[in-house]
Amino acid sequence: MDTMRIAVVGVGRIGLTHAENLACRVRGAELVAVTTSDEKRAAEARRVCGAIAVYEGLDDLLAGEQLDAVCIASSTSAHADNVVQCAAAGLHVFCEKPLALSLEDCDRAIGAASQAGVKLMIGHVRQFDAGHVGAKARIDEGAIGNPLVLRAISGDVDPPPPSFADPAVSGGLLVDAMYHDLYISRWFMGDEVQRAYAEGGALVDPAIGAVGDVDNAIVTLRFAGGAMATLFVSRTCRYGHDLRVEVIGSQGAVQVGYYRHTPVRLLDRQGVHHDMARTFPARLGDAFVAELQAFVDCVSHGIEPPVSGEDSRATLAIALAATRSMHEGRAVEL
Amino acid sequence: MDTMRIAVVGVGRIGLTHAENLACRVRGAELVAVTTSDEKRAAEARRVCGAIAVYEGLDDLLAGEQLDAVCIASSTSAHADNVVQCAAAGLHVFCEKPLALSLEDCDRAIGAASQAGVKLMIGHVRQFDAGHVGAKARIDEGAIGNPLVLRAISGDVDPPPPSFADPAVSGGLLVDAMYHDLYISRWFMGDEVQRAYAEGGALVDPAIGAVGDVDNAIVTLRFAGGAMATLFVSRTCRYGHDLRVEVIGSQGAVQVGYYRHTPVRLLDRQGVHHDMARTFPARLGDAFVAELQAFVDCVSHGIEPPVSGEDSRATLAIALAATRSMHEGRAVEL
Amino acid sequence: MDTMRIAVVGVGRIGLTHAENLACRVRGAELVAVTTSDEKRAAEARRVCGAIAVYEGLDDLLAGEQLDAVCIASSTSAHADNVVQCAAAGLHVFCEKPLALSLEDCDRAIGAASQAGVKLMIGHVRQFDAGHVGAKARIDEGAIGNPLVLRAISGDVDPPPPSFADPAVSGGLLVDAMYHDLYISRWFMGDEVQRAYAEGGALVDPAIGAVGDVDNAIVTLRFAGGAMATLFVSRTCRYGHDLRVEVIGSQGAVQVGYYRHTPVRLLDRQGVHHDMARTFPARLGDAFVAELQAFVDCVSHGIEPPVSGEDSRATLAIALAATRSMHEGRAVEL
Amino acid sequence: MDTMRIAVVGVGRIGLTHAENLACRVRGAELVAVTTSDEKRAAEARRVCGAIAVYEGLDDLLAGEQLDAVCIASSTSAHADNVVQCAAAGLHVFCEKPLALSLEDCDRAIGAASQAGVKLMIGHVRQFDAGHVGAKARIDEGAIGNPLVLRAISGDVDPPPPSFADPAVSGGLLVDAMYHDLYISRWFMGDEVQRAYAEGGALVDPAIGAVGDVDNAIVTLRFAGGAMATLFVSRTCRYGHDLRVEVIGSQGAVQVGYYRHTPVRLLDRQGVHHDMARTFPARLGDAFVAELQAFVDCVSHGIEPPVSGEDSRATLAIALAATRSMHEGRAVEL
Repeated sequence: MDTMRIAVVGVGRIGLTHAENLACRVRGAELVAVTTSDEKRAAEARRVCGAIAVYEGLDDLLAGEQLDAVCIASSTSAHADNVVQCAAAGLHVFCEKPLALSLEDCDRAIGAASQAGVKLMIGHVRQFDAGHVGAKARIDEGAIGNPLVLRAISGDVDPPPPSFADPAVSGGLLVDAMYHDLYISRWFMGDEVQRAYAEGGALVDPAIGAVGDVDNAIVTLRFAGGAMATLFVSRTCRYGHDLRVEVIGSQGAVQVGYYRHTPVRLLDRQGVHHDMARTFPARLGDAFVAELQAFVDCVSHGIEPPVSGEDSRATLAIALAATRSMHEGRAVEL
Repeated sequence: MDTMRIAVVGVGRIGLTHAENLACRVRGAELVAVTTSDEKRAAEARRVCGAIAVYEGLDDLLAGEQLDAVCIASSTSAHADNVVQCAAAGLHVFCEKPLALSLEDCDRAIGAASQAGVKLMIGHVRQFDAGHVGAKARIDEGAIGNPLVLRAISGDVDPPPPSFADPAVSGGLLVDAMYHDLYISRWFMGDEVQRAYAEGGALVDPAIGAVGDVDNAIVTLRFAGGAMATLFVSRTCRYGHDLRVEVIGSQGAVQVGYYRHTPVRLLDRQGVHHDMARTFPARLGDAFVAELQAFVDCVSHGIEPPVSGEDSRATLAIALAATRSMHEGRAVEL
Repeated sequence: MDTMRIAVVGVGRIGLTHAENLACRVRGAELVAVTTSDEKRAAEARRVCGAIAVYEGLDDLLAGEQLDAVCIASSTSAHADNVVQCAAAGLHVFCEKPLALSLEDCDRAIGAASQAGVKLMIGHVRQFDAGHVGAKARIDEGAIGNPLVLRAISGDVDPPPPSFADPAVSGGLLVDAMYHDLYISRWFMGDEVQRAYAEGGALVDPAIGAVGDVDNAIVTLRFAGGAMATLFVSRTCRYGHDLRVEVIGSQGAVQVGYYRHTPVRLLDRQGVHHDMARTFPARLGDAFVAELQAFVDCVSHGIEPPVSGEDSRATLAIALAATRSMHEGRAVEL
Repeated sequence: MDTMRIAVVGVGRIGLTHAENLACRVRGAELVAVTTSDEKRAAEARRVCGAIAVYEGLDDLLAGEQLDAVCIASSTSAHADNVVQCAAAGLHVFCEKPLALSLEDCDRAIGAASQAGVKLMIGHVRQFDAGHVGAKARIDEGAIGNPLVLRAISGDVDPPPPSFADPAVSGGLLVDAMYHDLYISRWFMGDEVQRAYAEGGALVDPAIGAVGDVDNAIVTLRFAGGAMATLFVSRTCRYGHDLRVEVIGSQGAVQVGYYRHTPVRLLDRQGVHHDMARTFPARLGDAFVAELQAFVDCVSHGIEPPVSGEDSRATLAIALAATRSMHEGRAVEL
């Protein structure tokens, strides 16, 4: 394959990011089309991506284009069906996280890709951030000894658009947002989670509570080998897009994250002032390019992608256990 | 009262710190005696405090000196009896944290002080650290809106001496060490804890596990008003004495703690390097002076101390609930 | 003009950066050709830029392509002639800094562009770095009061390739490297320099001294309005690409620069460790895109570029005065 | 000598600091008296130091007390005479910096101490700050290779009281304030200064200009071995007491100074905010204790103090050369 012909399914916030990266920044791939039934989004996609085809939906896309691969960025609840359909069409699949909202759907999607012999990679974007990559390398080289405890915070400045608040579509806060911290926990600790306990609440936004979700939550994890983690996720971090994770080991610790964004510091009679990243593109822009580049490279060279469907399934299993714990007020074993 | 005559009961690590501060740094008090049956500690106390009397125990001390107040730094398991005896002798009492190992003993000590009409203050040292004081002021002035979630880490470089490892004497990791994070949580959040969940393990030091204690633990708290906290305490933070706490509120966040200690930074081909505080005196030295100064000032001016016996009792109640949660594998309501 | 057809003249280190940015990241421009007589560089340019023409030199390029604009990244000693030739051909010109090695050549180039009615913009890349832009905005909005003193450091990790060391080609350390600090000084202080004093030495690399240049230098500037600046430039900052500038004003100060690069911090028994940017692309990569985007946008909209030939001339005048000061051991008035 | 009997001559801002430290924090010394003709200062000295004698002047003091040593904190213009008188009385002398306002007076004071066989130590306080001590240790152990260039800033928040502004009493900005950076430069670089160039101005406070002094100045130094330094001193750093120094060496760099003071960070929609030290006691409080402790210990053990009269004389020589440079607009050789 010389240049991979790829399309993006769904161009909401994250799909548009993927489309622009495929059009402008990823090497070895050519963005040929996107799908959307929204005319405004179609226009926006054309504006940032140049001359591309726009299809109403996946059926049209598959009928209308000769593709090598797809990038699925539809609603989470549609992921599994999309993957199955694209795999059946012989296309390699990059699918946004999580792979599905149920373990059964995960299995169905994984099976379809396996049967079709196509690559399936899930968008665990933080695994491609230079900070997380560097920390993982330090852990793997033994710089902190045995990992004992992981602490993480993931804070968004503002609640997402209402569409995300419907747990039936997004899976809820733990499946949708804390998911990132869960796969990072598995990856950093190199172990599987055995027990989860969660506390959560709609502490700021009653609208989120009204649909049965929470806007802030804390999850405690126990790993099979005895290690532990405490994760905090928030939709209401007014001060910035605050991603931090640290692992304390038997010989030291490693931390990812920082507060500075623009390298400017103001000093006046009130003190010292600077900014921090306020959006996920500001914090993770390069990682979104890197993950798609990894997908394209793996397909090109016929090697397994670094994030598998099974990784997403295992992550979802923890998220579902934590969600159950939150609703039932008790620790849940996996 | 011109200058308060005070004695320190018990001159282990923390008692010696108090003695030196009373002898050299606290104004309005005169350290006249300490108690210890260990000749080496007696010599060390004389070396750092100058000409003071040394008594074998509390009975001798009370018989031998005309005192205004005592600072109790004996084993935690002896605190309550010591407080009762000193209160009965009409002495004002500063008692190291926690006040006792059971709520009943707390009540007994509080009652004795109340009946005797003497001041009773408990050593919640972090409430006198400039960092924690500054953060509390910011919270109280509304700079972060409503406090929603508190995250804390308390890490000691190395396991304490074996004497601390006996939970019957120290109360165990949550009562002895996480206690600090618990009173800070109540103080910062301005609310009472309703539910606690804990995970812990003897992850590094099997000797700690052998006596039924843990060396690392995570506790999740739920407050009456809905707010939450996640606390991590460790005896095995090899890299430093790592005290950090942050409160995320509805309008912003405030953080206490830092990594720099000596203001020196080395830059070389390997990167950028600096040190951090490695011991509690390095991190909290000034706070130990400030808390005793507050006690002396309150007694001098006849006003109530800023940390009451009831504060210690409420803190202990959380620590005991968390300890039960850790042993029973379930959330515990207070 | 729909899409500007542009070529890059010279594809050394910086020319290749410009070519790649024009090919992949700048909107509204199409890179159609580069010039180089070196076959390896031609191959490298094709690798990073895709299908482009490669010409031996400027004459061939102008004969062979229909262009709208050029980006001149040849040796500094060739800049002026290149600008004159391209302007005469009716092309808009983006020229790397400095515009020339003498004020006479600056005037000749400025005059040629003016007469031809083409835009001429000089590559003052730091004026397009988010950090410097943010600081300038703070100064302009009055956040620091009147600017009083500017302090800057510009450190490269390692000496540049030998070609740069020949002052007859590069202009020497002050014209080639400190030039950046000089235009930032004019820009931040909003004033013209009146007097310069320089000390310099070949402190590390005798080869640099052998050709009459220095590898480390300090320059003091006096501005017409009384403000001052102290600039330090080094070819031998082993620890990183260290760009920092601060302006102290009558009401506060603003600082540009930082030490963190990858957002990872390692903590161990030796202390706290992290990395910093080691190369100019790592520190200024986005700024190189932004300056070319500004050029393309100005040409497209027919407006004056934000950095003029006169800006480069004024900057060079200071660099030449400082160089003279260094050689003559006395302050030099401009 | 068991406990050294010492008196403080002059209890202005700095003398009072020394008196309090000798009374409360320095071991092995007993503060027995101070001199002042100002009744308010006498009362203040008694308040912070307890029961001490107060004399009108040095004659009275020497007549009235049996002393072992004195700490001279009178006006700089009186230092030399005070040292000579105390040395003649057989007293060991700690003298605030600078030793005198002329090299002749330095020689006179040094000679008097030498002839009397008493110790003479000058108050180079930054040499006792943990940050500067740590950096010097790193330099000495070779962590940065050969020191090449030193950069320093010393900024005071606000102009000092009018008495300091009279150059005839204080020596002017370079002798009074930049003096600190000059001795640090000699100490860190381990070399002598050969040439100085200075630019300065009364940029903020016309009253300072009216008496012939400046409020901001930049000094460039050339060392005998070729190394260089650039020092900036300001009376008008509105944002804090900003002490920073860095040494760039052939293999790395070391930096002293930081912006954080209270370990609290506030994060809100406007960004990240924290404080920095605003006064010299906040930044250097411990160093003032350490330097007097060093003096007391040296006298007790009969060893030479770490800062000699010759160190002060050499520092003053640079300050005087820089002052001349500033007035004459040319580099001055030492």
